[in-house]
Amino acid sequence: MKRTFEVSPWHVKTTKWAPEDKLLQESITALANENLGMRGFFEEGYSDTTLQGVYLGGVWFPDKTRVGWWKNGYPKYFGKMINAVNFMKLTIAVNGEQVDFAKQTPTDFNLDLDMRRGTLTRTVTATVGGAPVTLKFERFVSAVQKELVGQRLTMQSPAEIDLAISAQIDADVYNQDANYDEQFWQVLDRKASGKGALLVSQTKANDFGTPQFTVAMQTSVKTDLPHVGDAVEAKQVANHFAGHVAAGQSVTLEKRTIVTTSRDYADQAELVAAAQDLVAQVDQVSYDDLVAAHVSQWAQRWAKSDVVIEGDDEAQQGIRFNLFQLFSTYYGNDSRLNISPKGFTGEKYGGATYWDTEAYCLPVYLGVADPQVAKNLLYYRYHQLPGAYVNAKEQGLKGALFPMVTFNGIECHNEWEITFEELHRNGDIAYAIYNYTRYTGDTSYVLHEGAKVLVETARFWADRVHYSQRKNKYLLHGVTGPNEYDNNVNNDWYTNLLCQWSLQYTLEILDQVDEDVLKDLAVTEDERRLFKAIADNMYLPEDADKGIFPENDAFLDKDLVPVAQIPSDQLPLNQHWSWDKILRSPYVKQGDVIQGIWDFIDDFTPEQKRKNFDFYEQFTVHESSLSPSVYSIVAADLGDEDKAVELYQRSARLDLDNYNNDTDDGLHITSMTGAWLDIVQGFAGMRIRDGRLHYAPFLPKNWTAYQFNQVFRGRTIQVRVDADGTHLQLLSGEPLKVELGDQLTELK
Amino acid sequence: MKRTFEVSPWHVKTTKWAPEDKLLQESITALANENLGMRGFFEEGYSDTTLQGVYLGGVWFPDKTRVGWWKNGYPKYFGKMINAVNFMKLTIAVNGEQVDFAKQTPTDFNLDLDMRRGTLTRTVTATVGGAPVTLKFERFVSAVQKELVGQRLTMQSPAEIDLAISAQIDADVYNQDANYDEQFWQVLDRKASGKGALLVSQTKANDFGTPQFTVAMQTSVKTDLPHVGDAVEAKQVANHFAGHVAAGQSVTLEKRTIVTTSRDYADQAELVAAAQDLVAQVDQVSYDDLVAAHVSQWAQRWAKSDVVIEGDDEAQQGIRFNLFQLFSTYYGNDSRLNISPKGFTGEKYGGATYWDTEAYCLPVYLGVADPQVAKNLLYYRYHQLPGAYVNAKEQGLKGALFPMVTFNGIECHNEWEITFEELHRNGDIAYAIYNYTRYTGDTSYVLHEGAKVLVETARFWADRVHYSQRKNKYLLHGVTGPNEYDNNVNNDWYTNLLCQWSLQYTLEILDQVDEDVLKDLAVTEDERRLFKAIADNMYLPEDADKGIFPENDAFLDKDLVPVAQIPSDQLPLNQHWSWDKILRSPYVKQGDVIQGIWDFIDDFTPEQKRKNFDFYEQFTVHESSLSPSVYSIVAADLGDEDKAVELYQRSARLDLDNYNNDTDDGLHITSMTGAWLDIVQGFAGMRIRDGRLHYAPFLPKNWTAYQFNQVFRGRTIQVRVDADGTHLQLLSGEPLKVELGDQLTELK
Repeated sequence: MKRTFEVSPWHVKTTKWAPEDKLLQESITALANENLGMRGFFEEGYSDTTLQGVYLGGVWFPDKTRVGWWKNGYPKYFGKMINAVNFMKLTIAVNGEQVDFAKQTPTDFNLDLDMRRGTLTRTVTATVGGAPVTLKFERFVSAVQKELVGQRLTMQSPAEIDLAISAQIDADVYNQDANYDEQFWQVLDRKASGKGALLVSQTKANDFGTPQFTVAMQTSVKTDLPHVGDAVEAKQVANHFAGHVAAGQSVTLEKRTIVTTSRDYADQAELVAAAQDLVAQVDQVSYDDLVAAHVSQWAQRWAKSDVVIEGDDEAQQGIRFNLFQLFSTYYGNDSRLNISPKGFTGEKYGGATYWDTEAYCLPVYLGVADPQVAKNLLYYRYHQLPGAYVNAKEQGLKGALFPMVTFNGIECHNEWEITFEELHRNGDIAYAIYNYTRYTGDTSYVLHEGAKVLVETARFWADRVHYSQRKNKYLLHGVTGPNEYDNNVNNDWYTNLLCQWSLQYTLEILDQVDEDVLKDLAVTEDERRLFKAIADNMYLPEDADKGIFPENDAFLDKDLVPVAQIPSDQLPLNQHWSWDKILRSPYVKQGDVIQGIWDFIDDFTPEQKRKNFDFYEQFTVHESSLSPSVYSIVAADLGDEDKAVELYQRSARLDLDNYNNDTDDGLHITSMTGAWLDIVQGFAGMRIRDGRLHYAPFLPKNWTAYQFNQVFRGRTIQVRVDADGTHLQLLSGEPLKVELGDQLTELK
Repeated sequence: MKRTFEVSPWHVKTTKWAPEDKLLQESITALANENLGMRGFFEEGYSDTTLQGVYLGGVWFPDKTRVGWWKNGYPKYFGKMINAVNFMKLTIAVNGEQVDFAKQTPTDFNLDLDMRRGTLTRTVTATVGGAPVTLKFERFVSAVQKELVGQRLTMQSPAEIDLAISAQIDADVYNQDANYDEQFWQVLDRKASGKGALLVSQTKANDFGTPQFTVAMQTSVKTDLPHVGDAVEAKQVANHFAGHVAAGQSVTLEKRTIVTTSRDYADQAELVAAAQDLVAQVDQVSYDDLVAAHVSQWAQRWAKSDVVIEGDDEAQQGIRFNLFQLFSTYYGNDSRLNISPKGFTGEKYGGATYWDTEAYCLPVYLGVADPQVAKNLLYYRYHQLPGAYVNAKEQGLKGALFPMVTFNGIECHNEWEITFEELHRNGDIAYAIYNYTRYTGDTSYVLHEGAKVLVETARFWADRVHYSQRKNKYLLHGVTGPNEYDNNVNNDWYTNLLCQWSLQYTLEILDQVDEDVLKDLAVTEDERRLFKAIADNMYLPEDADKGIFPENDAFLDKDLVPVAQIPSDQLPLNQHWSWDKILRSPYVKQGDVIQGIWDFIDDFTPEQKRKNFDFYEQFTVHESSLSPSVYSIVAADLGDEDKAVELYQRSARLDLDNYNNDTDDGLHITSMTGAWLDIVQGFAGMRIRDGRLHYAPFLPKNWTAYQFNQVFRGRTIQVRVDADGTHLQLLSGEPLKVELGDQLTELK
């Protein structure tokens, strides 16, 4: 655990110059707008450890893999979000010495991420070229215009100085995690005029038939420094400004960058034209007005979704930070985009889509944003069905297998025990359709595109199970559950449950769709019979003595020693134990049976929930950041308030406190949903039952009150829980009946 | 299946010029002497497809791996036998045109591997530089002097020609399978004199603490062509000879190469001196006398081990080819060397040591060579105990885990399901000690070095098993058996059996060793108790209904469809099915339960053998070349003569007929033991019972007779089986009592 920023309700800020925490600070001060984003790196450059990361949503490269190729069905590449051309670059020289705070130690430093406004401001004072200078860097990634990034530099010195600033676009960029240390970009075109510059780059050709992306970056630069020339080099383009600055005189430079990509425009000419048009437009608007529009969009987001925690500023800051970064990563404006585990804040996980989206993110977006936001996450998978057919075919199976890791629907994860075997993702995607429909009441998706997704995944399940003569049941052999500390198991309870449920739900939906949809789905009677036979005879064992669901066939044969008995110096296991030892152990990386109980929390008896929770909790090491929040919700459901709060705290400030000591790599974006889920589903006991909102709140001991706004079927509802009890208020929308505990009340 | 050579009892020859089979011919005409070897590539160069492979026993490079590094316990490198400096090279030009049969199509071609003599001769006639020329290339890799390779070129033309020959040593060589396309060699020194040349090369430095090897190659060249100069380049050294040759005049060039390595000499100076001394010595001996000494050594080998098959020349050629290549790869002169699956004939499997040695090769060497040959294979593992400790420690376990793949005892295979899990190798190594002792009656190894190996592997087993409360038994979870078409299974029957047996055998041996040995082994009473407890309570299930041993916990839950029902166009599975589908299937790549029954063939009832054989045979696809021969022996034991012969035929000519269509890569050296085992253990029913030889022969229908010589406890026995029955003859050694069927006869 390491806390580098001050605790403050709406700000993540520090005045501490801490080069040893540079990477951590860059991750935490990342900005994004779903379409593009960047780490909080220094635009003026930094000659010591830094990850200068700028990323564009949906712009990726299929990096040829080194593993697994020798067996049939292995993915050929690992898709990676490209570390984009650096259009933020500003090279600043004072009296001929380049500004580089790795060399000129700041005497005064102020870094401030304003979560309410969505802006990052950095003020630094240091001596450069013999003169004391103060530089104020401001930036925002527009929440209203997806192509726009704004930067403003204001600087001055009590001394007279010679100042030179180059506003650049630099395409000489590598991905930190490239398999072959090659550059993914090639430059197609570049131009510079006194007022700005253009660079057009394209991803390299590849052997895998995935699209090449073309990107145009057009900057506009406004400054009171005289323009002294431009430079157009092979991989870089620059506008040079320089002049003599009087003592105390303030100099300002504004840089507006518009980024257009071939994702939105047909050809190079079009996207260049678009970039130039858009720059011309934003040039007409003052920097402050551009910021104001951006801030007002954030204000609307907060109005829908703010969570207030009284009596615990750390928790308050934590939940707002989580929502801020989550909304920055995805706000549902583009159904071709998704939420990668590290968003735009780092390169780990390749910036690709995982099942985290359906399992952890969608339930949050349902509660904090308009239904279209969540719906676009569903469309994302629907659009990728062609890729899912390919994945199933690669394994010699029917229907659709959605990928573990992807940009385009094609699997690009390389470990067979995950790629081929972590099948529950197919069920999580089906469950998300159910979850969306249950929450919104909107059946338009499930009865059309959703039905297609359900049927194709059902076809996969029906082909992937096998019938066992001996057990007289349908089994799923060779799978890996959400608990990745056990691989290639037989009859993972969670996977079998989702398989069974998916087939049942598919059959239900088939009875509701229109004739024409049914015709298009072309489900034969034999298929229906098979779906039903499997659903009716799926193997789902329960251990009578222990009253639990065994995680898999072998789990209860393991050496069942509770985590509590492992010497603490051997934890976390993944840093101290061999993979072999971990795999054979009973230790649970993240909930498997408990994940299933969360998904269907109203379908199990209190005794079943209690026995399974108590049994699995003693073996769970929570070495996935996605783990504790789910346990917290189940604990709350069981009335274990202290346990629920304790588990909540493990994820509430995961990155702000660098809890897992890996935030340098980037933020745990998809885990940031955990705190919200714990507060809303856990502490407040929010459930949807028969289309009706239900709450059963409790107040954590160390809080005086908490309050959240929740979007539900056209309303915004405010839920406040304090010492006096629970206060429900309808902020907008039609009157609504809500259950509070066992009381039905109408909100007006 | 593809046959490119003529059927002949003692020769592998062809007069067919078949460039499309170049790689196949190179593999089959490989020569070696355990210390070094080479494919049958053309020394004059070949500008079309060829694998110019020269390899030195025990000279390897740790090639940094790309896989698995991200989890604890993964090997860091894959060891590879280096494609050595090419000291065979001869560049030949006629009237200024270089000889290259990829360009000058031979009008006459004769390639002859003489297995009795151990020589390779190639005679080619073609038109080069406008003149018809006939070249005769002879080579041998000395079976009497491990450092010596001899080559002789004799050529002539009916026309007058200008002839130029360069005798070279070329260090500009790559391994076909290098992970990073880097060269493993660096040249330390090179010299040339009119009479020969020297090149000293060294393997590159590495980060893994494995030794660098230095190699000196000193050639001596004798020819009637005038010496016209030498060339010393960065990576190559050459002696040039050239002159005018009259019509019909024959020109000869002899090249003797001595290769010394740092495996045998302390430093560079020493090994260079040694190479030069040895060349000076062999220079005194005529080429024909050098060959004669080599041939007489082969004659002695054949006297001990020849197998004669009458009425089936294909079988005759097959068994001799197998023994020839096996003896070329290993003849037990150096206990630091071992038998890699492809010997010196290709780069697949990296030229490293696998469990094939103990399981398949050692039983053959016991029967065909002096005991020291087999004993040296046991010493090989004993010397590598330090590496085996490292492997166990990497997994967080006690004792010794011998590697799946190695040169030095350290594991260098990279797939976790093999590296961590294919544990039976530890048991196979223990079994080899038992097998050697049983056959030879020599207890000197088992009561000293062997006891150490047994105790340390027993310590590993005792730490690797776990006690299951539920089953009240000791289990082995997360293992892979010899059937690699099922991975990461629980309680692989074969592995559990070997674990149990190893512990029992270790305890037996502990009761027999001397005080001082016992003291050194330092086995505590607690350890003995634990070994016994595990041996007594190891989980070894038997299925009552089927009367079989389930291969693993999940096997009988699989979809048990016999291979016969798979459409033939889906076979072999590994070329048509996804790895996922293969893993979940019941299909057996190579015997697992049947392997265990072979190991302890006298310990099971005929009914147990019958039921298990019939059950597993219907699922076995034999997609490992090691598989059919074991099934053949068990079939013979059961009296299924036709089945035994049919299975024998699948491996008897595996490479000569390119049965698996992969002999281009190299020969299946370790599988070449199969045919001998089938004839001796299968057809002739050879067993050792209570220290006595036993036979129960039958004569395959299509053979008129077969006869083999077998070494046993100081005797050489000839066994002949023909229409009149079985004829036993003592060729050398003291009288001996032998059981033939149930009759006890004394051989005098």
